Amino acid sequence: MPTLGIDLGGTFARAAVVDAAGNVLASAKVALSERSPAGVVETIVQAAAAAKKFAGVEVVGCGVGAAAQIHKDSGVLSVAPNLGWRNVPLGAMLKARLGQPVRVVNDLAAAAWGEFQAGAGRGASDLLVVFVGSGVGSAIIANARLLDGAGGVAGELGHIKVVPGGRRCGCGELGCLEAYAGGHNLIAQTRELLAAGSSPKLVELTGGDAAVITPATLEQAAEAGDAAAHEVYARAAQFLAVAVANQVTVLNPARLILGGGVLTHCPSLRHRVMEGVQAWASQTSREGLLIAEAELGDDSGLIGAALLAA
Amino acid sequence: MPTLGIDLGGTFARAAVVDAAGNVLASAKVALSERSPAGVVETIVQAAAAAKKFAGVEVVGCGVGAAAQIHKDSGVLSVAPNLGWRNVPLGAMLKARLGQPVRVVNDLAAAAWGEFQAGAGRGASDLLVVFVGSGVGSAIIANARLLDGAGGVAGELGHIKVVPGGRRCGCGELGCLEAYAGGHNLIAQTRELLAAGSSPKLVELTGGDAAVITPATLEQAAEAGDAAAHEVYARAAQFLAVAVANQVTVLNPARLILGGGVLTHCPSLRHRVMEGVQAWASQTSREGLLIAEAELGDDSGLIGAALLAA
Repeated sequence: MPTLGIDLGGTFARAAVVDAAGNVLASAKVALSERSPAGVVETIVQAAAAAKKFAGVEVVGCGVGAAAQIHKDSGVLSVAPNLGWRNVPLGAMLKARLGQPVRVVNDLAAAAWGEFQAGAGRGASDLLVVFVGSGVGSAIIANARLLDGAGGVAGELGHIKVVPGGRRCGCGELGCLEAYAGGHNLIAQTRELLAAGSSPKLVELTGGDAAVITPATLEQAAEAGDAAAHEVYARAAQFLAVAVANQVTVLNPARLILGGGVLTHCPSLRHRVMEGVQAWASQTSREGLLIAEAELGDDSGLIGAALLAA
Repeated sequence: MPTLGIDLGGTFARAAVVDAAGNVLASAKVALSERSPAGVVETIVQAAAAAKKFAGVEVVGCGVGAAAQIHKDSGVLSVAPNLGWRNVPLGAMLKARLGQPVRVVNDLAAAAWGEFQAGAGRGASDLLVVFVGSGVGSAIIANARLLDGAGGVAGELGHIKVVPGGRRCGCGELGCLEAYAGGHNLIAQTRELLAAGSSPKLVELTGGDAAVITPATLEQAAEAGDAAAHEVYARAAQFLAVAVANQVTVLNPARLILGGGVLTHCPSLRHRVMEGVQAWASQTSREGLLIAEAELGDDSGLIGAALLAA
C-alpha cells in the first residue's frame, strides 16, 4: 500500500504519495505562508490532500523528514533552526489531523533511507551517506537499520572538529567541518576573499558583486589557479575528504553515497572527496567499497520519509 | 546455560566458562607453544577442556575474540598479524574439535560486547567503546547490536588519518591516529626523544635506558614540565581526544567507555580525553552522554566472546 512522505524545509512543505517500490505517484509543494506550528501543520495537510487527490489512492501511513533535531520515538522536534521552533510535537499534531500513524525523522536520515531503499544504496545493508549542501550532514545505515543514536542526533558529520578552536560555525562552536566546507561557509569565505581584494580571479568572475557568489564560483577561481581561492578551496576539500575517509575507516560501509547541492554542482570537489577516500580510508575498510552519487536528487527525502512509514 | 569464551592473543589463549549473567565460573590460560593454525587450535582445545573441568558444567556454545580481522559470518581470520596468519578458518576448525557452534569476532568487538552486557555499558543500547593499549581501537554498539561493517572491520579508530602524509603507522599507512597515540608508538616516540637527547627529564626517569620506557614514562616527563616530552604527549592527547569527540558527534552514543592498558595506566591522558570530549563533541551529541571507564579489565574479551555465543 502506498504511503505519504512529507519533506519539511524552511520555506516549503512537499508531500508525495509513494508506492512500496519508492515510486512517486503524485506530489505537491506548498509554500509555508505561516511558520507557527499550527500554520505549518495546516500547510502540510493541504499539500498531503493535494498529493492524495492527484494520486487517487489511499495511503496507510505518513513519514516526515524535517530539517530539525528530532526526539527519538516521540516525533517531537527539539530544535528546528529554519523554523525557529523548539519542542514542537509535530508527529502528534499531524497524526491528529491526518488520522494516520506518523513517523518523524531528520531530513538527512529520510534522504539516506530513500537512497538505501530506492536509490544508489539499493541492495547494500551498510551505508554512509554524506550530503554537502548549505551545511554538511551524514546518515549511517548499519545492518539495514538507521543509526539514529541515543538522542536521535547521530550523523552530525558537519560538526566534527577539524580545527579545534578554529573558524566559528553556525552552531556556535569553533572549528567544525561545516565552518570550512559547508555551502553557506564556502560562500562566506569566498566573500571574505573578495572583500579583502586578495583574489583577482574572483573579481573577474563576479564583477565585484558578492551577491552572485556560489560555492561553484570558488571552485572555478581555484581551478583557474587563483592562489587565494585555491587555498580556501583546497583546505575545504581536504577537511571534507579526510573526514569522509575517516568515517569510512570507522564504519566500514559497503557503499559511500555522496549527495547535496554543493557536491552536485562542484564536480571537482566531489572528485577530490572520492580520491581522498581512496587515499586516506584504511586499506581494509575500502576493500569492496563502492562510492556512488546520490540518485534521487531532491526527492530522496520525500521518498525515504514515505518508505520509513511503510 | 553457560557458554565458553576464548581470548586468542599473540602469545596466550585463554578460555573461560561464563554464565548468562557474565560471571566467569572458571578460566584457564595456556601459552601458545606453536603458532601454526593446528597448533593454536590444539592449545585452545586444551584451555577449553581445563576451564570446563574446573567449572564442572556443560556449555552450549563457544565465542572467540581474536586479535585479527575476521571475515564476517564465516569465522575465517583474514589477517592475524600477531600470529602471522592469513585466511585461517579458525571457526570451522574449532567447531570440528569442540563439537559446538563457534562464533569468531575481533577481540575489541568481544571486549566491547562484554562491557555492554556485563560491565560499564549495562543498560545502554548505544555505546562507543575506545581501547588504547599497544594500538588504538574502538567498537560501536548501535541499537543494541554490534556494528561490524560490510567487511567486518568497522571500529578501526586507530587508523583514521590525523595527519595525512604524517608519521608511519604499523599498518603501513601514513598519519594514522595510532602512529601518534598508540602505546607502541608512544614508546617509540619517547625513545626517539631520549636518543635525540632533547629531554633531560627522560634521562632522569630512565637512567638513559630506553628499554624501561612505557607510555607512563612519557606522561610523567610531560607532567613534570619537560618541554620535548610535553610536545609529543600533548599532541598524542589532542589527536586522541579530538578523534574520540568526533566519533561521539557522529555516533551520538549513550555511553562512551574508555579502556585498555594505556588509558588505565596514564590517568592524565584519560582525563584529557574525557575533557576533550566535553570540549569538542557537538553539544547535542553529548547531552545525556555518560563517560565511563571499562570495568571488566582483561576479562572483557573473554566474557564478551562467551556472551556473543549465548
